[in-house]
Amino acid sequence: MLLKGRGGGSPCNSHRLTATMSSVARPDPAETPEEQRFLSTEEAAALERELLEDYRFGRQQLVELCGHASAVAVTKVFPLPTLSRKQRTVLVVCGPEQNGAVGLVCARHLRVFEYEPTIFYPTRSLDLLHRDLTTQCEKMDIPFLSYLPTEVQLINDAYGLVVDAVLGPGVQPGEIGGPCTRALATLKLLSIPLVSLDIPSGWDAETGGGDSEDGLRPDVLVSLAAPKRCAGRFSGRHHFVAGRFVPDDVRRKFALRLPGYSGTDCVAAL
Amino acid sequence: MLLKGRGGGSPCNSHRLTATMSSVARPDPAETPEEQRFLSTEEAAALERELLEDYRFGRQQLVELCGHASAVAVTKVFPLPTLSRKQRTVLVVCGPEQNGAVGLVCARHLRVFEYEPTIFYPTRSLDLLHRDLTTQCEKMDIPFLSYLPTEVQLINDAYGLVVDAVLGPGVQPGEIGGPCTRALATLKLLSIPLVSLDIPSGWDAETGGGDSEDGLRPDVLVSLAAPKRCAGRFSGRHHFVAGRFVPDDVRRKFALRLPGYSGTDCVAAL
Repeated sequence: MLLKGRGGGSPCNSHRLTATMSSVARPDPAETPEEQRFLSTEEAAALERELLEDYRFGRQQLVELCGHASAVAVTKVFPLPTLSRKQRTVLVVCGPEQNGAVGLVCARHLRVFEYEPTIFYPTRSLDLLHRDLTTQCEKMDIPFLSYLPTEVQLINDAYGLVVDAVLGPGVQPGEIGGPCTRALATLKLLSIPLVSLDIPSGWDAETGGGDSEDGLRPDVLVSLAAPKRCAGRFSGRHHFVAGRFVPDDVRRKFALRLPGYSGTDCVAAL
Repeated sequence: MLLKGRGGGSPCNSHRLTATMSSVARPDPAETPEEQRFLSTEEAAALERELLEDYRFGRQQLVELCGHASAVAVTKVFPLPTLSRKQRTVLVVCGPEQNGAVGLVCARHLRVFEYEPTIFYPTRSLDLLHRDLTTQCEKMDIPFLSYLPTEVQLINDAYGLVVDAVLGPGVQPGEIGGPCTRALATLKLLSIPLVSLDIPSGWDAETGGGDSEDGLRPDVLVSLAAPKRCAGRFSGRHHFVAGRFVPDDVRRKFALRLPGYSGTDCVAAL
């Protein structure tokens, strides 16, 4: 997911997009059906535009589907019955843009699945959707931290895992404000498992560069809609795609070759 | 779910509501935790108001959650691997109000789950949410019937099952227009399995009366949020509740005693 929580979209070079479209219309026959395919930043933005503008998906609807699927992905890697009480505690760190909105929905579904989420959401969006999602979490008695301890051992001791919903693709670390930037610096030092939503926060969505050398090293990555190119550099244990809502025609248009979803599963392991 | 697709809410007598509230605050200790509890029309309206106004759930969000869960309920009773190709065809009949919107979402998720839905949606709502949900189905190549054959054998032969998303609680048969009324008359005569969403269309949500004597006799009922009182007169094979999104506090407030949801399931069998 690329659109920012405050309603902005990523800029897009229409010439390059057209070129991309015509190339994806002719899939390489040597490409095996199992081959994983990553979307460039422009393709991902075009896919999201297609869902929002052509298919008329609502942002509330997409954020709900992605957040629900992210929570389901957490349950696949960390099944509740295998966890101690302490391990069920999940710190969900949310940024001010769309990635953070997905994090809020993920936290709510984790609560419904009987995990014990706590939210750190230091830079709150004024966007109505974000405010409503925040209210849902608050009313469901999910605790919100007023600050994140800088002493990482406190976090390692208090939580079983951390969900990183700070920065999505197309959002620069400089845009999210000091508290989020400091939170990212803290997340890098944690020893408990880290689950990143869509991209590891701070990574360049295209190259994985920028922050990737000394950046976050999540154990689990949940690609939303489809994997972004930087996911090729993900070296954690579990990579899921949460994009069952992407219509077949759109998958074909972007030559997405991803493993099938089974039964009613909303995520697939890559 | 009670709110109408065009934005109307059910009228509500505040005196009786208050009385209801105070009575649900003192649950009968003799009531066992397993006991099934149905909501009166007023309680159901109050529960939905609580979700929309206090918890700030969006209508798009609730309709998506309910439609998804309805499709999952269909897969539980009619698992895809056990069905012949013909049995995978599902006719989804949608009314113009919120029940119909849930039906449109249900059809989309059935398509995603690899069933073959066809939609009959004769009286289209002008509501933006309905229009967007319709576009999603159309763009996903789900066929829309322009008329429903009056010869029931044609429907029995063409489809494996029918989803009834015509009328929710609080909507009178007279409000939905001729084509929906005629569709209901046709649905009564079918011999293929019928799945009703929230209440069997045409039943009085409170008493099950009105149309219940010679009304629809669904095989499967999927109660949305919580079962309405008329569900006590449901005598079909499978009754599900799709209300995992209802926060614990709200369940307690309305003294809802329902079986637990397991794992990440969004429906529970009653």
